[in-house]
Amino acid sequence: MRIDIITVLPELLQSPFEASILKRAIDKGLVSVYTHNLRDFATNTYKQVDDYQFGGGAGMVLMIEPIDKCISKLKKERDYDEVIYLTPDGETFNQGIANELSLKGNIILLCGHYKGVDQRVRDHFITREISVGDFVLSGGELAAAVVSDAVIRLLPGVLGNETSALTDSFQDDILAPPIYTRPADYKGWKVPEILTSGHTAKIESWREEQALKNTKEKRPDLLDDEDLR
Amino acid sequence: MRIDIITVLPELLQSPFEASILKRAIDKGLVSVYTHNLRDFATNTYKQVDDYQFGGGAGMVLMIEPIDKCISKLKKERDYDEVIYLTPDGETFNQGIANELSLKGNIILLCGHYKGVDQRVRDHFITREISVGDFVLSGGELAAAVVSDAVIRLLPGVLGNETSALTDSFQDDILAPPIYTRPADYKGWKVPEILTSGHTAKIESWREEQALKNTKEKRPDLLDDEDLR
Repeated sequence: MRIDIITVLPELLQSPFEASILKRAIDKGLVSVYTHNLRDFATNTYKQVDDYQFGGGAGMVLMIEPIDKCISKLKKERDYDEVIYLTPDGETFNQGIANELSLKGNIILLCGHYKGVDQRVRDHFITREISVGDFVLSGGELAAAVVSDAVIRLLPGVLGNETSALTDSFQDDILAPPIYTRPADYKGWKVPEILTSGHTAKIESWREEQALKNTKEKRPDLLDDEDLR
Repeated sequence: MRIDIITVLPELLQSPFEASILKRAIDKGLVSVYTHNLRDFATNTYKQVDDYQFGGGAGMVLMIEPIDKCISKLKKERDYDEVIYLTPDGETFNQGIANELSLKGNIILLCGHYKGVDQRVRDHFITREISVGDFVLSGGELAAAVVSDAVIRLLPGVLGNETSALTDSFQDDILAPPIYTRPADYKGWKVPEILTSGHTAKIESWREEQALKNTKEKRPDLLDDEDLR
């Protein structure tokens, strides 16, 4: 898989891809991530990539021309499955979309900044608009890092233990059960006895029970009517 | 405001706080952000902070003792309004929570990693659990960066133009209208005439109309019944 991120702040994206699982995935050759500085595609000597809004109002807007030039250059080099714009008014990102994107070959992530991009970019170049949630960030960079992280960890071979991702919250529309590790007793706070009993089958059904209870309490919206009965 | 982030991967959080608006807010003294490496609070010579799950299963769990030691040390130094654990099964983060947190004095953000933290940490030390969305990340670090960014940009004086945040998506439970910048005609794709008309009042009502239309089409869930009629 290959991810190309277009941004005015490539330096913001440096450390997330140089640490932990993302770095390991890149080092193993399971994914390549490239960041492209939009300023390199500016058309004037001031490296201008943003301008005031037509009609007035606070906040700058990313111009269409540098974005067009950058996307066109990338598209000439290879085919892309999706050109994604990260924006608060896009489709809300979730584990289903992460699963879906993890099956793609090449994707472009365009990070908004300031007030966002010229609407004509969205109308003519973007194939999909994704929001990481109902909140506003100072730019799309962290959203791009979030989407990349959620997708990359699903690629086969990235997580050390293949079963690990499958027991995460949301993979079955159910939250994870509580987890415990040593010591069994910490300041009088004890681990549930069942977990130290050694009865694998009983532990499994306790976990399912707890996961369902967790989900019913915190996120009943994730369950269909049948589970709620 | 002061944000303390507890993590096993402080290096992942480096660049987001050294770029753009977050850096400016820190430089202006409007917020202080400190990251604490959980390994510095490990109790054995291997700097161990995670261990296997009781009851078996894939994935490591962050141990209670180093977390207790780190939180206790911070709490001895000052009072905290919230000790927040970032976890996919927490309350879903949104602009309302960002507004609320922007009014706090000191907060701790605890980043989960691997499968998460020992349940007893959540039961005894955490005052609030927040999820940035219905997806799983390789750790809570990017979630902590997202929450910090959304909150910090709301602090008075952080954004250059105070009105800028108020016209963002979600501040009125409504999405932003389309925006355009120069050139007015790009490859035959033109800016809506109204925006170059100079009629401020007409532009305002066009924008309200478009914002409502956007919201109805993409996120009808944000509108109450009255607006939908």
